[in-house]
Amino acid sequence: MDFQRRGVMLVIASPSGAGKTSITRALMDKDGNLALSVSVTTRPPRSGEIDGVDYRFISIAEYEALRSAGELLESAEVHGNFYGTPRTEVEERIAAGADVVFDIDWQGTQQLTETCRSDMVTVFVLPPSIAELKSRLETRAQNSPEEIARRLANARKEMDHWLEYDYVIVNRDLGEAVDRVEAVLKAARNARRRQTDLESFVKDLQSQIDSVQ
Amino acid sequence: MDFQRRGVMLVIASPSGAGKTSITRALMDKDGNLALSVSVTTRPPRSGEIDGVDYRFISIAEYEALRSAGELLESAEVHGNFYGTPRTEVEERIAAGADVVFDIDWQGTQQLTETCRSDMVTVFVLPPSIAELKSRLETRAQNSPEEIARRLANARKEMDHWLEYDYVIVNRDLGEAVDRVEAVLKAARNARRRQTDLESFVKDLQSQIDSVQ
Repeated sequence: MDFQRRGVMLVIASPSGAGKTSITRALMDKDGNLALSVSVTTRPPRSGEIDGVDYRFISIAEYEALRSAGELLESAEVHGNFYGTPRTEVEERIAAGADVVFDIDWQGTQQLTETCRSDMVTVFVLPPSIAELKSRLETRAQNSPEEIARRLANARKEMDHWLEYDYVIVNRDLGEAVDRVEAVLKAARNARRRQTDLESFVKDLQSQIDSVQ
Repeated sequence: MDFQRRGVMLVIASPSGAGKTSITRALMDKDGNLALSVSVTTRPPRSGEIDGVDYRFISIAEYEALRSAGELLESAEVHGNFYGTPRTEVEERIAAGADVVFDIDWQGTQQLTETCRSDMVTVFVLPPSIAELKSRLETRAQNSPEEIARRLANARKEMDHWLEYDYVIVNRDLGEAVDRVEAVLKAARNARRRQTDLESFVKDLQSQIDSVQ
């Protein structure tokens, strides 16, 4: 039985290569009530990327307009490109009880926390070892040795932020890691503070007792 | 992969008849790492109750000795009998990473919270309706109409405390309610604050990066 509730803002963060994208996809395949927050970006689409699915690709002018109107829940500049999470769509989904997953880094998590903490549950995914992380980065065809070195250096910095997350999961086995994140999501749905009509439900139970006594 | 971690103190509370005992038993059947906290009590055993399983049956003198030595995590007097949760066994289990479930009322929950909040996860179970609650109380052979009326009055009071719990679950279907509590337990095991060797694990990952760069 589900009460009317606010959706869960599920943040999954990890160093590059630790597996957050695979976990996120597998979780969305298993769970019909979970949608990915689609970010806007000013960078051009890469081969295979679909507008509105991977990102919403927008111009710098459009991006600036969104940001100055306060329409971005978080925003960042990476290698000269801008990325951001549009506010309205997320807020409407959460208010309607749909859950939204965010594939963002520690800076995005911190920005989201400033305005949305009570709706958020945050998970930090770690690789089992650096040999494993390096091997995953190497199997990505587009990653040159320089790119891998850069990503490892970034991973090192990202890892400094593990203390800022509610849950920490080591991705040794994808299926097991997905099960753990799924438990986090399922638990969060039953959190008291998300169930917006509990107060009236309890009052109704109590008046039912009054009427039979 | 499991880190060394502190166990979860899982508190399941509910008005009498809402099903917390059935949920607790089903959860322990499914999960080998979960043990029930066995309370001490000064009341005499009822037919079928086993010493050390249902309760540890002790004398009033033994109870007073435990309480004055600070050896009870929570204690209560109900209808002239004393009940309490022994401290040492719970603390040893939690420190060893074993999870302990507590079948206690709102007063016990409040007492436990004073000393153990960071180890606890609390779940409040509600009946779907009072007709259903009454019917469950009536099928318990030993419950007279007066006893049922008394339990309903108690249930009404217990329900005032729903706001003090992390999670609230309506027990419409036992299997579904057990799944929800199981998700709460599984999530709690992955909470950052319970994983006592995460800091050294992350530092080790970071020095692995330093050594390959």
